[in-house]
Amino acid sequence: MKYYAYDDFAKDTNSLIKKVKEYNPDAIVGVARGGLTLSHAVAEGLDIRVVQTLRTELYDNTHKRECLTIFGGCEFKDVKKVLVLDDIADSGDTLKAVMESLACGNEEIEFKSATLFYKKTSCYEPHFWINEANDWIDFFWERDFK
Amino acid sequence: MKYYAYDDFAKDTNSLIKKVKEYNPDAIVGVARGGLTLSHAVAEGLDIRVVQTLRTELYDNTHKRECLTIFGGCEFKDVKKVLVLDDIADSGDTLKAVMESLACGNEEIEFKSATLFYKKTSCYEPHFWINEANDWIDFFWERDFK
Repeated sequence: MKYYAYDDFAKDTNSLIKKVKEYNPDAIVGVARGGLTLSHAVAEGLDIRVVQTLRTELYDNTHKRECLTIFGGCEFKDVKKVLVLDDIADSGDTLKAVMESLACGNEEIEFKSATLFYKKTSCYEPHFWINEANDWIDFFWERDFK
Repeated sequence: MKYYAYDDFAKDTNSLIKKVKEYNPDAIVGVARGGLTLSHAVAEGLDIRVVQTLRTELYDNTHKRECLTIFGGCEFKDVKKVLVLDDIADSGDTLKAVMESLACGNEEIEFKSATLFYKKTSCYEPHFWINEANDWIDFFWERDFK
């Protein structure tokens, strides 16, 4: 287990901002809770004011298979390119479902995703990512406020 | 102008978490962008998964007075007590408008607000706050990602 401190986050987020700059998004969607701090930082770095968030819940129905539900609707008025942010693509289930859900009904909008960490076994690879995750990551936001 | 570093934020946010704990909210609404990092931290500290966000825009119409518009709808299914989070109550206009907007149509839900900073000249005083703001505050999220 690796403690991921604020200083690591600041360094990596600045690298991520450099990577996504050429995509030039005009709105951000953050995936709560993991993507909230990252969304704030990237929005400041890219000077984007249109920041919206979604959250997901995983239900384990004993009779059916696991079911991921997405909460929170996003509005994309005058928006052409959206950057979707989460801390990590681990199994990839969350980000895959979020990207499919956002694309549905928004065919005229381009969506790209970015994370700080990406696990090679993830079923979904973000368009932009910084670190490969090999270990469990103990993010500072999960540790510093307990 | 005072630089507000992550370490200051972590200390103050832990103080804020102690203050709001007895209110025992079951959902958080963060005001974007300023309240995003705080919402993430408080949600982790209180173990609250239901985090939603709003954002505001101030239009300066030359023929009329300034007009604050709130974007993003919140859903409060099975929610009784909501904590609304922003970084600072400065003029207080944003938080005042957000609290009024949330209360409208949600009479059965209790809403309380919390900020890290409160300026005594604000037109709205949050239910919970940590520091009095006397100077312009240079939050780390506004500085570290430029």
